[in-house]
Amino acid sequence: MSDNQLANKSQAWSALFSEPMSELVKRYTASVFFDKRLWKADIDGSLAHAEMLAAQGILSTEDHAAIQRGMAQIREEIEAGRFEWKLDLEDVHLNIEARLTELVGLAGKRLHTGRSRNDQVATDVRLWLRGEIDEIAQLLTALQLALVDVAEKNAETILPGFTHLQVAQPVAFGHHLLAYVEMFARDAERMADVRRRVNRLPLGAAALAGTSYPLDRERVARTLGMEAVCQNSLDAVSDRDFAIEFSAAAALVMVHVSRLSEELILWMSQSFGFIDLADRFCTGSSIMPQKKNPDVPELARGKSGRVVGHLMGLITLMKGQPLAYNKDNQEDKEPLFDTVDTLKDTLRIFAELAAGITVKPEAMERAAMRGYATATDLADYLVKKGLPFRDAHEVVAHAVKTAIAEGRDLSALSLDALKAFDARIEADVFDVLSLRGSLNARNILGGTAPDQVRAQVARHRARLA
Amino acid sequence: MSDNQLANKSQAWSALFSEPMSELVKRYTASVFFDKRLWKADIDGSLAHAEMLAAQGILSTEDHAAIQRGMAQIREEIEAGRFEWKLDLEDVHLNIEARLTELVGLAGKRLHTGRSRNDQVATDVRLWLRGEIDEIAQLLTALQLALVDVAEKNAETILPGFTHLQVAQPVAFGHHLLAYVEMFARDAERMADVRRRVNRLPLGAAALAGTSYPLDRERVARTLGMEAVCQNSLDAVSDRDFAIEFSAAAALVMVHVSRLSEELILWMSQSFGFIDLADRFCTGSSIMPQKKNPDVPELARGKSGRVVGHLMGLITLMKGQPLAYNKDNQEDKEPLFDTVDTLKDTLRIFAELAAGITVKPEAMERAAMRGYATATDLADYLVKKGLPFRDAHEVVAHAVKTAIAEGRDLSALSLDALKAFDARIEADVFDVLSLRGSLNARNILGGTAPDQVRAQVARHRARLA
Amino acid sequence: MSDNQLANKSQAWSALFSEPMSELVKRYTASVFFDKRLWKADIDGSLAHAEMLAAQGILSTEDHAAIQRGMAQIREEIEAGRFEWKLDLEDVHLNIEARLTELVGLAGKRLHTGRSRNDQVATDVRLWLRGEIDEIAQLLTALQLALVDVAEKNAETILPGFTHLQVAQPVAFGHHLLAYVEMFARDAERMADVRRRVNRLPLGAAALAGTSYPLDRERVARTLGMEAVCQNSLDAVSDRDFAIEFSAAAALVMVHVSRLSEELILWMSQSFGFIDLADRFCTGSSIMPQKKNPDVPELARGKSGRVVGHLMGLITLMKGQPLAYNKDNQEDKEPLFDTVDTLKDTLRIFAELAAGITVKPEAMERAAMRGYATATDLADYLVKKGLPFRDAHEVVAHAVKTAIAEGRDLSALSLDALKAFDARIEADVFDVLSLRGSLNARNILGGTAPDQVRAQVARHRARLA
Amino acid sequence: MSDNQLANKSQAWSALFSEPMSELVKRYTASVFFDKRLWKADIDGSLAHAEMLAAQGILSTEDHAAIQRGMAQIREEIEAGRFEWKLDLEDVHLNIEARLTELVGLAGKRLHTGRSRNDQVATDVRLWLRGEIDEIAQLLTALQLALVDVAEKNAETILPGFTHLQVAQPVAFGHHLLAYVEMFARDAERMADVRRRVNRLPLGAAALAGTSYPLDRERVARTLGMEAVCQNSLDAVSDRDFAIEFSAAAALVMVHVSRLSEELILWMSQSFGFIDLADRFCTGSSIMPQKKNPDVPELARGKSGRVVGHLMGLITLMKGQPLAYNKDNQEDKEPLFDTVDTLKDTLRIFAELAAGITVKPEAMERAAMRGYATATDLADYLVKKGLPFRDAHEVVAHAVKTAIAEGRDLSALSLDALKAFDARIEADVFDVLSLRGSLNARNILGGTAPDQVRAQVARHRARLA
Repeated sequence: MSDNQLANKSQAWSALFSEPMSELVKRYTASVFFDKRLWKADIDGSLAHAEMLAAQGILSTEDHAAIQRGMAQIREEIEAGRFEWKLDLEDVHLNIEARLTELVGLAGKRLHTGRSRNDQVATDVRLWLRGEIDEIAQLLTALQLALVDVAEKNAETILPGFTHLQVAQPVAFGHHLLAYVEMFARDAERMADVRRRVNRLPLGAAALAGTSYPLDRERVARTLGMEAVCQNSLDAVSDRDFAIEFSAAAALVMVHVSRLSEELILWMSQSFGFIDLADRFCTGSSIMPQKKNPDVPELARGKSGRVVGHLMGLITLMKGQPLAYNKDNQEDKEPLFDTVDTLKDTLRIFAELAAGITVKPEAMERAAMRGYATATDLADYLVKKGLPFRDAHEVVAHAVKTAIAEGRDLSALSLDALKAFDARIEADVFDVLSLRGSLNARNILGGTAPDQVRAQVARHRARLA
Repeated sequence: MSDNQLANKSQAWSALFSEPMSELVKRYTASVFFDKRLWKADIDGSLAHAEMLAAQGILSTEDHAAIQRGMAQIREEIEAGRFEWKLDLEDVHLNIEARLTELVGLAGKRLHTGRSRNDQVATDVRLWLRGEIDEIAQLLTALQLALVDVAEKNAETILPGFTHLQVAQPVAFGHHLLAYVEMFARDAERMADVRRRVNRLPLGAAALAGTSYPLDRERVARTLGMEAVCQNSLDAVSDRDFAIEFSAAAALVMVHVSRLSEELILWMSQSFGFIDLADRFCTGSSIMPQKKNPDVPELARGKSGRVVGHLMGLITLMKGQPLAYNKDNQEDKEPLFDTVDTLKDTLRIFAELAAGITVKPEAMERAAMRGYATATDLADYLVKKGLPFRDAHEVVAHAVKTAIAEGRDLSALSLDALKAFDARIEADVFDVLSLRGSLNARNILGGTAPDQVRAQVARHRARLA
Repeated sequence: MSDNQLANKSQAWSALFSEPMSELVKRYTASVFFDKRLWKADIDGSLAHAEMLAAQGILSTEDHAAIQRGMAQIREEIEAGRFEWKLDLEDVHLNIEARLTELVGLAGKRLHTGRSRNDQVATDVRLWLRGEIDEIAQLLTALQLALVDVAEKNAETILPGFTHLQVAQPVAFGHHLLAYVEMFARDAERMADVRRRVNRLPLGAAALAGTSYPLDRERVARTLGMEAVCQNSLDAVSDRDFAIEFSAAAALVMVHVSRLSEELILWMSQSFGFIDLADRFCTGSSIMPQKKNPDVPELARGKSGRVVGHLMGLITLMKGQPLAYNKDNQEDKEPLFDTVDTLKDTLRIFAELAAGITVKPEAMERAAMRGYATATDLADYLVKKGLPFRDAHEVVAHAVKTAIAEGRDLSALSLDALKAFDARIEADVFDVLSLRGSLNARNILGGTAPDQVRAQVARHRARLA
Repeated sequence: MSDNQLANKSQAWSALFSEPMSELVKRYTASVFFDKRLWKADIDGSLAHAEMLAAQGILSTEDHAAIQRGMAQIREEIEAGRFEWKLDLEDVHLNIEARLTELVGLAGKRLHTGRSRNDQVATDVRLWLRGEIDEIAQLLTALQLALVDVAEKNAETILPGFTHLQVAQPVAFGHHLLAYVEMFARDAERMADVRRRVNRLPLGAAALAGTSYPLDRERVARTLGMEAVCQNSLDAVSDRDFAIEFSAAAALVMVHVSRLSEELILWMSQSFGFIDLADRFCTGSSIMPQKKNPDVPELARGKSGRVVGHLMGLITLMKGQPLAYNKDNQEDKEPLFDTVDTLKDTLRIFAELAAGITVKPEAMERAAMRGYATATDLADYLVKKGLPFRDAHEVVAHAVKTAIAEGRDLSALSLDALKAFDARIEADVFDVLSLRGSLNARNILGGTAPDQVRAQVARHRARLA
């Protein structure tokens, strides 16, 4: 009796097959060159399965010990880079199992009792992804902390707040950065939600229908630290919605990164000149000697496309598939792997990048002055003097028109000139027309006043501790 | 002092503008024809805002009363279809505010104190979406219950379980349907998670920086039943990640619907002939008199593309936008509205459709027989007799090959013939070779045995009660 | 014998059906509320079909005349808004055919000879789309001409050319705009290519297999101005690749529009201040009296997401569909219609917008000075004096570093100071250090020198004439 | 004077930079590990550039010879796998240029005269993609020919044609396959259209503005076999619409492949049983000994998601980018490369797969009989006897209903039974009720009659020759 399936997939699959797989097909369908990164999860899952088989009396104590011994050696070989991955053995699962059988004989063949590659791969991907989500959570925390640090230092730094990229109202630069902390905090919430749905055990679903062996699935789940057992075998082996949900959450992180990147690029452009990025995050030009380019945020903005593309690819993949497992699903791995890699690299580099931002407060303040950023404050001033808001808005529009024509800021108009627009205007108007006065006035929960910024910084530090 | 902004947007925006908006631009930028569906949320939000302004002493009791009176009348007018929506007034907010001012004068103008359209629209969309998510949750429950009903009736009905659309192992038809119940249950979980992030209050962020009025944002949140207050004004008015997250969750629902649809279409195809759909969900052909087409599942499968497309559109929209509000964001509404409509219609119709499925158990069982569905059971039988699984697999492959050549099922081979493949085979083998024996054997948590199906049905009923 | 199919779809489809379609299903599956816009194409296609049937002797002269008479009246009714569209009649085709039968009796029923709704709808969509492509081609021409006009006026206007949004080298503003003319010219090429594949005749494919009537398909193609006849009936009724290809071409137009929009928004931001947009394309703020927002480009940038989303939706729709026609395909229409509408509106408004750009040359030139835009020219100068480029690059980097430290432009350094970096530098260096000198120097095909810009303007005018 | 840029990017970029790039950033921004596949195009482009520089007298004959010599050696080293690719040198261009300078000194440094990496990389990608498109064109031809072969052999094989996956009318299996030939023929047309837009020369655009060297761009275009010169330098270095257009065309190919795959999977399912795929394209199961799974078509269907995802990624990447080159664009390469690889592998394997299809005509014919596939023929028969089509349709619906109730085909009803539905029915009706009669009747251009199939086969062979 040959062990043809494991020893040599270049032989036919089984007696049922009259010819071996073509070389082209073997390459087209093999996954070992990308799925070998699941090896740790594969071994962990196998060990938990074996432990349960032994506890249930399905596997002998000797076989169990042999499997543990064999797996320990395989783990060592892989870590040392000495494990030989074979295309002929198609994927990570068969590579490890074949080696195990080489090492421990029949015991290795018995490991597959009551399971199938279908539930095995679903388990591996979930275990692996759970670990990656945990790393991503830490990276999101690190990025938030880095932003909170810069925000704290800039609780009083005045930046022109934009809407429609037109100067709107002065905001604290720290307040602006905390907007991103909110976004990344929501991203972390989403990752935590995804994790709950990832952390469920498919093992025991076997090929699609469950198995006739008396497995204790709850025990395996406990061993692997999983929160629940998938309650339907067909669903367990065939759905990949957890991968799609993760990709959607990852795409949102990248969308947030792309927005921050867009702003860093704008701010570093000479016309804004609000910040400088540390040289180590920039490149020069092979032709223009004066150039210092914000490569990292540009590339991150570009990489958002990559992650969004993977999300779309995964959805397209799953759409309209009948139950249960179809080979289409093998295509879930590369986009998922690349999404994880891109996300982790990007978060890591952005935490460093944030720490390397040089703020140029004068340029920010100068830009805020250029855009009549306190016009709303003048309108609010008039409202407090009794004018309905809609009317105050119109009065100020006239004042701004005049100021533009004269080429100066509202605060540079004389009191008489201002009174001409509305008699209610008095000398105290100049307090509200200053950028700092405007900033301090927005002292409301969620507002931009420096006190609010500091309060938020404290809240975030407590939350992230 | 004119109230030009409200009475007539065909006039210039304010004194600052030297010419009115072009008619083409007005049409291009107006949103009232689609955003008027937010009217209820807009009024609710305004009333909560007014109540708080009064409580804080920013609005007089008389003005508050006038606003309540005016809003009551507007509500009535809209419900009665008597409200005149004006393109010139651009959007739902200005239409309602202009009418309010017509009805109650200055009090109407004072309602806008301390808020802006930026935080107002963000609040409206969140309030509206929260309501829709609640409806979707109910529809998901109804669909799950409908599937559970059919599953219960078919706990013993034998269906050929497929992998790769090849007959794999017998499964209970009820078990198969419960796989979809699992999917829709996860979808409902996701919707609940989204709801928590939707149900937060942007109001008080004003245009982008907060406001100088002493608003009590927590009070407004309580009045509106919101779980939290957005903690950063810039983030509050500019991010739409909640809409993208909702769309991703909706896309997953539709992906699950598309998978179920694919199966219904296959099963109703004459070559399968496993089910029939009620005539009221089908159409005929204008040219082929014999046709009865499963239009509803086909259309639902097609509509998954629509919802996926909206998700892609929303992500593209948001990618690379600088803070804070940009007009791009107006484009969030139509895809969101259409996603909600499509999802609700589809779920509603599928709950009805499920109830109208006629099952054809003989055809299902015949198909299961055609595919050597119990071959794995024979392998398991040999394993229990001491053969390692990998070897048993090979023995059975030989048996199947012979059976195919003879054109009959494994169970139709004689005991002698079977013994020729492995001497360990005895008369009790025929129990495991029957479809029902195979089904009953998979009596493990999540497996397809009828007892497991009934246990799951009970669990789902309890969960959905 | 009733004409039940046409008179009343609330009755069962045919004798085969035992119950009428449910109201919910009728609404879910009906298309008449969006596909009625195909009415003109539907009538044109029917008339061409009838003409051929008559020529082939399949239809009597009297019946043909009756059909022509009936269709003329229907055309009139629709144009006058008097035609009553009925949901019960499902789609545009049945609505028109039912009315025709009302008007001309049996002749109307005979029109459907040798065709099916499957080939009819494919023909209608192609005829309609061909017309829209022709309009889009004209709009693309108009937009290109509008840009060429502004480019011509600004052949000498100096703009800082950016790479990585960092000042790179001076370019003519006219040259910059002509980059967009190139893009839109390629878009027009793509539309012309799509048109060839759209302009082919499915009619005669009938339901899926062709027909037994001796139709003359080439004649119908000629009548309708189509370039070819679809050569395979199954393909003719089932593929929608022409719609996907059109959507991809449309998405590229919108990507180009979004890039131009991004630049208009940047340029109008106070920090750049390079241009102003006419008031009629802008809006103010309901809260900030000083605001003038570039709504149109922002919205166009946002609408690129919409069109990209439709492309994704259409691809998802088609993926994995078996032949021939499936109901999924009905979902091709709304995204296609909305893509066409969005594209036409956007192109129309951008042609007007371009004409309304006010250029601020001083601000552009000031910004170019700020970024050492002529550093490359200094390097080229040194190369011409014999230094290898890579070495010249390094010399200039040192000079720029010094100039930044001193806070002035390269051209403001003294000759002695410059000579200190490389002895080869002489008095003639100041010619190459001026913005205009740099601009004029790039007098190469495709380069930014004003002479090149004017030559390109002439080429485009000739091409677009 | 150091050649720091080339020798060691771990040093600072130039004198302007005060610190070297961080290792993390270097890895994040480097492209050499994927863009090295452009090496051939990079060398070809450089040689054409050098040849022109020499012809224009910008480069000395000696330098030109040295560059040619150096490049010949580099070509050899790369082909032999002896070239050492360095991460520190960032990309393929700097790696090759640095090695050239090592080999030939100053001449190597002079090669970069009048060009920049921006126009160089744009040129490389276009040259490379042009070559790939040519290979894809050949693979599309091979696949069409393989399908034509099978079609020819099956011009008379009867398959049930489906609409809505319900039996519709009999079609020739050859006719069905030719539908895919039409699709792939259109795909090839699209590739040819893309090629024209790819095959244009950006070189000479330099960094963004053209160059002050008197380059002869037309000469370089001729040397490289390019059809035109990009007419605007800013556009030349910054747009990637050719890559997006290619990806859209590739996505359509994959959509067509996914449709064919869906059908192969259905047809090989036991319930259909229409075909068998050669064993070498299939895999078995590690747990179910009887399985033979159509892995290749499943995987191809899945890979359509991958290519669609790349298209979406590329569009997202480009959306909203200001001119000219931004680093985001570096992200265009990996999706493009993977799209090309996936497409080529898939086409290659499908041409082989098609040749390995075993057709089972009896199963196909049996299935056609099951679905009243000739009902339309009976209706047409009645029309020819004078009944309006709509009425004939209703008569046949009654007949089908009766036949279903009796569990037999229309052709199995007696003449008397048929006459009861309409007195016009006579003995000749049985000719039209046979599958073959139905098939032969559709003898119209594009129809399914065997004569038409054979005519199409001949047309395709001529076209593809």
